[in-house]
Amino acid sequence: MSIRVLVWNENVHETTQEEIRAIYPDGIHGAIAQGLGELLGEQAEISTATLADPEHGLDEETLAATDVLLWWGHIAHDQVDDAVVERVQRHVQGGMGLIVLHSGHFSKIFIRLMGTTCSLSWRNDGEREIVWTSAPGHPIARGVDQPFVVEKQEMYGEHFDIPNPDDQVFISSFEGGEVFRSGVTFTRGRGRIFYFSPGDQEYPVYFHPQVRRVLANAVEWAAPSGERATPAVSNPARRDWLTTGGAP
Amino acid sequence: MSIRVLVWNENVHETTQEEIRAIYPDGIHGAIAQGLGELLGEQAEISTATLADPEHGLDEETLAATDVLLWWGHIAHDQVDDAVVERVQRHVQGGMGLIVLHSGHFSKIFIRLMGTTCSLSWRNDGEREIVWTSAPGHPIARGVDQPFVVEKQEMYGEHFDIPNPDDQVFISSFEGGEVFRSGVTFTRGRGRIFYFSPGDQEYPVYFHPQVRRVLANAVEWAAPSGERATPAVSNPARRDWLTTGGAP
Amino acid sequence: MSIRVLVWNENVHETTQEEIRAIYPDGIHGAIAQGLGELLGEQAEISTATLADPEHGLDEETLAATDVLLWWGHIAHDQVDDAVVERVQRHVQGGMGLIVLHSGHFSKIFIRLMGTTCSLSWRNDGEREIVWTSAPGHPIARGVDQPFVVEKQEMYGEHFDIPNPDDQVFISSFEGGEVFRSGVTFTRGRGRIFYFSPGDQEYPVYFHPQVRRVLANAVEWAAPSGERATPAVSNPARRDWLTTGGAP
Amino acid sequence: MSIRVLVWNENVHETTQEEIRAIYPDGIHGAIAQGLGELLGEQAEISTATLADPEHGLDEETLAATDVLLWWGHIAHDQVDDAVVERVQRHVQGGMGLIVLHSGHFSKIFIRLMGTTCSLSWRNDGEREIVWTSAPGHPIARGVDQPFVVEKQEMYGEHFDIPNPDDQVFISSFEGGEVFRSGVTFTRGRGRIFYFSPGDQEYPVYFHPQVRRVLANAVEWAAPSGERATPAVSNPARRDWLTTGGAP
Repeated sequence: MSIRVLVWNENVHETTQEEIRAIYPDGIHGAIAQGLGELLGEQAEISTATLADPEHGLDEETLAATDVLLWWGHIAHDQVDDAVVERVQRHVQGGMGLIVLHSGHFSKIFIRLMGTTCSLSWRNDGEREIVWTSAPGHPIARGVDQPFVVEKQEMYGEHFDIPNPDDQVFISSFEGGEVFRSGVTFTRGRGRIFYFSPGDQEYPVYFHPQVRRVLANAVEWAAPSGERATPAVSNPARRDWLTTGGAP
Repeated sequence: MSIRVLVWNENVHETTQEEIRAIYPDGIHGAIAQGLGELLGEQAEISTATLADPEHGLDEETLAATDVLLWWGHIAHDQVDDAVVERVQRHVQGGMGLIVLHSGHFSKIFIRLMGTTCSLSWRNDGEREIVWTSAPGHPIARGVDQPFVVEKQEMYGEHFDIPNPDDQVFISSFEGGEVFRSGVTFTRGRGRIFYFSPGDQEYPVYFHPQVRRVLANAVEWAAPSGERATPAVSNPARRDWLTTGGAP
Repeated sequence: MSIRVLVWNENVHETTQEEIRAIYPDGIHGAIAQGLGELLGEQAEISTATLADPEHGLDEETLAATDVLLWWGHIAHDQVDDAVVERVQRHVQGGMGLIVLHSGHFSKIFIRLMGTTCSLSWRNDGEREIVWTSAPGHPIARGVDQPFVVEKQEMYGEHFDIPNPDDQVFISSFEGGEVFRSGVTFTRGRGRIFYFSPGDQEYPVYFHPQVRRVLANAVEWAAPSGERATPAVSNPARRDWLTTGGAP
Repeated sequence: MSIRVLVWNENVHETTQEEIRAIYPDGIHGAIAQGLGELLGEQAEISTATLADPEHGLDEETLAATDVLLWWGHIAHDQVDDAVVERVQRHVQGGMGLIVLHSGHFSKIFIRLMGTTCSLSWRNDGEREIVWTSAPGHPIARGVDQPFVVEKQEMYGEHFDIPNPDDQVFISSFEGGEVFRSGVTFTRGRGRIFYFSPGDQEYPVYFHPQVRRVLANAVEWAAPSGERATPAVSNPARRDWLTTGGAP
């Protein structure tokens, strides 16, 4: 059964800045979707949605039919409707996988799921990023070079204000000497979350074969393993388990 | 230097239900404050605040002068002002310790810090709760009996929808056979968080010597270890670290 | 591609005690292998090995051709050859999955991988065990009843001396009031490890459909996701990564 | 009550290589002990022991009277007696704090406590190491510059084969672009463990004020919080907890 993937992008830089459109003529979402398509083939059905779509393309029906959502946003985080953010959060809690990309660290959805400020140190100076694998047995690291190099990239550095991750998969260094936990996993409810920092609108990072490998692996990893169900309060009678064999 | 502790309680049951006031004549906050005072003595300066206070007693100045905040709420979660919740969250991220008690699992502040639904299974049937220590070397378990028994208590059971905790300190069983991760720790920003479930308005749990021991230990553990500072974005020049020796 | 599964059992109770053989006429390994076969079908190739086999059936070639090893031992832990234990450990570090069962908590291999005493509280009194899922989105919990009940079982209780697990999947309660972290995961090197306590030689637990479901799920989860390679020291020249694109 | 600290060093480089003795005239243990003494003052009683001492200075009585043990070893790991290693492990499990330094990643005691190979990438080329704090609220990071710089140091890089740490406190980058999880914490039994990589026999790293600050903080953090007791098997009768109020 194929994984239903939805690549979401605010798609503002690409539609308002010619120099960004030159890098991502099909939008960042287009570049990501293309990469996933090449690597996952029939394992995945890939769609895209953007901020400008009705309900940002994230209506109830669409999310219910999405196994893994990828999220790219940057300058329009505050234009994302709170009701949509709550809806996405609920679906993640119910089991939908979520992959948050680069500047998405400051998206409403990531901050809500983390409970921290998600702040970090940054500098846009076209620096070389070296991405090291710190969990070589993790499914997301399968077939990824140790290390791989992104020639030009915005620097993201520690302290990255996130909760202790479940797994620490990638750590990056930058030309200026900074380090960053660039690939980390979390669980919220039944949902698996992967944050991955390499990727920026000013550099063609989403065409990098190793970045594409990571994202394809992450899609497979984040897909829900069982049925979807948002955790909910229950009020069982004493020893209900004797007869029911257990409610969810 | 003594730890500045603030015990917060919505204080609604005690002021509106005579049978609850009979159990907690000084309010739940009063019972907790008394217990902490007896065990911590001069190590702590203990204050209380309630929902009815201006700004719920949680104004900026008060929080800035609080090392550890304890939180008890139940039927009035939605009456807590969102601006106050954001303020508390910011102080936790900056290093203030937070101890969330029992039905506080559904408080706005806990849900915001966890990013999950914080839902659980429950039944109010006056059941015996046995509290087992699963991390006997943890500072919060110091001097706590293995196990200790709460004769009558509301049942809280799994699945408890929280993120993976940093440390799993206590696990409870109930007469009806349920289990619950009753003592768990988290970090958000610089702040240490402890959730502890034993304690309810209908049972005199906050007079239990073992419960009091746990709360006193938790206050010591949650107190900030260094200076307070909410994590924030920085934008350093390349190799700033050469000359500054490092910004916070 | 099917998962190559090896079910290892010391097979001493079954060959020396008639009353145990009556419960497990094909040995505990036989019962487990049968259950996995029914649930995994062509997804798995299942073999068994026992203590009495040459090199306990765990020679280099066999381990190299094993994706997931299940381990049941009890009264003959000390008869397992140290050289074999080291070999198994090396293969786990290289990526082979390992599922340690019940009294295997005191096996040499589990103690070596954990670094703790792996001690616990126990009582063999035929008590009812209720197994609760604390991570309903985890692949190992897929399709498992919440809770499921094992009518008669040896009690295993806290404190269970293990390191903080990666994921806390199941927690059990027992008739006598004890609790136990009955399903927990760890990573060592590239290898995924799952410890699962329900199961004992005196009770037909390995015929329980829910226990079988858990073990089948665990086999799928523990199978290596990429190529096998034991982590090893490397001594790269400066900027080797410029030309090699990275060594493993 | 002061913390009883024991600084252990194999003390082989310093006694056999003049150029190392020039850097550490009082031995690495002497330099560390001096730094701890200056920062902790009356909070700590500091002793030292070396490989050449009877039982390596780690007899039962000494360990029983040690709250925190620091461990430096490199070329003589295999000369450490296995019986002593087992004894140290037992005391850690019982609550003694352990701080493992730099090349101690390959000590018998660290490998036994981790269960992994503890292998890493290395290069001795006198590179600048920048140490970044990834957990600014952690007690071990108190008062430590963000970042601090070690001008010349051996490079240690990922993949560092350790289990998922409890807390990820420091991450380093090196001139050559490598990264390393240079400060990580673990729990084994009741014992708290901190591994810290900055420090080498060829560079005067243990005189660095920031390194000394980290080690002093780590000593305070690793000291046992309650009574010492190695986790052990127990076999309680049913409902023993009714009358005993619980054994340890």
